Amino acid sequence: MTDPITGAGDEARSVVRETAARAREAAAALATTSRADKDRALLAMADALVDETTSILVANEEDVQRARDEGTPESLIDRLRLDVPRVQAMADGLRDVVGLVDPCGEVVRGYTLPNGLELRQVRVPLGVVGIIYEARPNVTVDAAGLCLKSGNAVLLRGSSSARASNARIVDVLRDAVQQAGLPADCVQGVAGEGREAVQHLMRARGLVDVLIPRGGAGLIRYVVEESTVPVIETGVGNCHVYVDADADLDMAMSIVLNAKTQRPSVCNAAESLVVHRDVAAQFVPEVVKQLTAAGVTVHGDDAVQGYADGVTAAEPDDFAAEYLSADISAAVVDSLDDAVAHIRRYGSGHTEAIVTRSQQSAQRFTHAVDAAAVVVNASTRFTDGGEFGFGAEIGISTQKLHARGPMGLPELTSTKYVLTGAGQTRE
Amino acid sequence: MTDPITGAGDEARSVVRETAARAREAAAALATTSRADKDRALLAMADALVDETTSILVANEEDVQRARDEGTPESLIDRLRLDVPRVQAMADGLRDVVGLVDPCGEVVRGYTLPNGLELRQVRVPLGVVGIIYEARPNVTVDAAGLCLKSGNAVLLRGSSSARASNARIVDVLRDAVQQAGLPADCVQGVAGEGREAVQHLMRARGLVDVLIPRGGAGLIRYVVEESTVPVIETGVGNCHVYVDADADLDMAMSIVLNAKTQRPSVCNAAESLVVHRDVAAQFVPEVVKQLTAAGVTVHGDDAVQGYADGVTAAEPDDFAAEYLSADISAAVVDSLDDAVAHIRRYGSGHTEAIVTRSQQSAQRFTHAVDAAAVVVNASTRFTDGGEFGFGAEIGISTQKLHARGPMGLPELTSTKYVLTGAGQTRE
Repeated sequence: MTDPITGAGDEARSVVRETAARAREAAAALATTSRADKDRALLAMADALVDETTSILVANEEDVQRARDEGTPESLIDRLRLDVPRVQAMADGLRDVVGLVDPCGEVVRGYTLPNGLELRQVRVPLGVVGIIYEARPNVTVDAAGLCLKSGNAVLLRGSSSARASNARIVDVLRDAVQQAGLPADCVQGVAGEGREAVQHLMRARGLVDVLIPRGGAGLIRYVVEESTVPVIETGVGNCHVYVDADADLDMAMSIVLNAKTQRPSVCNAAESLVVHRDVAAQFVPEVVKQLTAAGVTVHGDDAVQGYADGVTAAEPDDFAAEYLSADISAAVVDSLDDAVAHIRRYGSGHTEAIVTRSQQSAQRFTHAVDAAAVVVNASTRFTDGGEFGFGAEIGISTQKLHARGPMGLPELTSTKYVLTGAGQTRE
Repeated sequence: MTDPITGAGDEARSVVRETAARAREAAAALATTSRADKDRALLAMADALVDETTSILVANEEDVQRARDEGTPESLIDRLRLDVPRVQAMADGLRDVVGLVDPCGEVVRGYTLPNGLELRQVRVPLGVVGIIYEARPNVTVDAAGLCLKSGNAVLLRGSSSARASNARIVDVLRDAVQQAGLPADCVQGVAGEGREAVQHLMRARGLVDVLIPRGGAGLIRYVVEESTVPVIETGVGNCHVYVDADADLDMAMSIVLNAKTQRPSVCNAAESLVVHRDVAAQFVPEVVKQLTAAGVTVHGDDAVQGYADGVTAAEPDDFAAEYLSADISAAVVDSLDDAVAHIRRYGSGHTEAIVTRSQQSAQRFTHAVDAAAVVVNASTRFTDGGEFGFGAEIGISTQKLHARGPMGLPELTSTKYVLTGAGQTRE
């Protein structure tokens, strides 16, 4: 990573590590900051975003213009573009966070030991949280707000395509935080070109407590494989809907259509349909018809192709695909256990649904399927911090350590044990 | 890692990955195994250890003989050596685990969403847990028992110095598990010479859900830095006792002596003493005298050297040292905040104690110190799964993600969200 002549890599490393070290100092201050002071800072951040709408939009226009010059598709430019309502929405998001309970200080467990020591396990901030993200500039605001509320200093590394917008937003937020009496370094961007800065961030173990990558599968895999800082893996969703032999087929139809078509570009949309053979002759032709009518391409196995016309032959990769588009794979299985095995083989551990009237099938499926969320008789689309009532979401974890599923404020905390005694010593 | 001619590395990689894949299959079965069946297997494992005492001791004698031939110090040989009571104790440990509550199935959160969806967050096994450990063969049994009880398949990679003992113990446990009707692959050793097998284990992301290294600082650092599998960092403890201006000095004396001398070789023993200047003239001479009388070398800063005779001048490294021996660093500070800063700079985030009569000092210290355990007016030696009432301990986490402090059975689990509906779709 270091240029042997210019030493440029070492300089980039120093910049990232100094940024992280400042975050660490800020985190120490934030850890003992009251909820009232944190909420005051959040409100100041919201007000500042509204006040600085014009300068934010000017910066954003620079990003949009560059994207257009580079021939970026309009759909991506729309994700990048800010306007007055969108800036207002970011500010409103911060005000919503003010209303959420501060997770820090929550006593998770507490009891008195036989020797009289009073033990409490108390929620505390993680410390320094790094967020590496693509796409929309609103993530900058969301992540800063959630991290500050949970007492964490945040290091924000957004997409280079949004660099002017993100830089301006970070400056606005930092000024507001400082004017509210907290260290500006509670919120910092990570500067530097391309992946080099990210590489140094991923190696800053001891300075950064956790990295959360948010974006496409490529970004997430890269961070997971290269980071020595602990990572929370987010988001890849190859979600299945399994239509059991005992399913209410009208309910199954409505769930499949909703899970696939209500918003195909998100990680909790269904990508795979699995149908029990006992109901396949009845269900498959109708579901293929309705999916096709909704503009969805069905990539079916041989059995599905046999039951319905207009099915595209599935390639082996289809069953593992996270399409994020108007496509769905479809397979017929002989039993619930075969459905579980299919999901086990191809699933990504995000959200898996069963449609069934059988209590036994529902119980077997929920026990045997290994995923962040298992859904009985409802759409996969409900796996979401907002839907779960968390009030906010920093991402959806698809790993098993620390947090699994939608992550709200408590998932941005660790705990410490506090033991209070009267001179106890160990014999 | 691969020999370009023999391809030996690839073969070692295949062996490790096939072992992990078998663990994965076993874990799928274990995840839906009832507590009764798991407890039956644990009892069978205990009985088998007792029945096979002779063959275990024969294997152990081989390890002891080899260690002796290699000139291993007697203190280490004692850690390696098994005898009838020690095998009995391992079996008793398994029987104790039978009595612990099964963490799987515990509902961590549960409520009904506004749309009628019933949400439950339920504890489930992590899946495949890898333990990389040094020293005593009893860890083989402890880890196997705790992982099985919590529904996890375990991959055991012990020290090469105990390889015959560990191999025999694993065989005995596997036979017992199988005879109890569970897959033998719930418990597996990881074969292969030296660090190569460990390297492949650390790269088996997707097959292994978590690695827990237990041993010296070098082993832990190696695993943390090289692993792409998520790691739980355990155990390095540079624990401080801070004697506040408002301390009861008799209590402080008894706590310092206990924390340092009761068992110096363990991670929750005190390694550092920090004294407020207001009480230093009174406390330092006496504590140095008593520590010295107990055989402890005090490595003091200039101030400590000024207050007492017989103090060794501290080198900069002393304040960060985890001695695990009859040594302690000592420093004088001007304020509680300076004590917090000293601990922040040199501590390892394990256990930090304050001795004080001041409620305000106690509160400030517990809030500001960032460690797995913060202790008011008691010895650091209480940070321990057994002392905390967990019934068992797989290690003490000094990281913030997933688990922090002593890890019992719940810390060997993840959660899944189970959503039960009546056909809900998202609008």
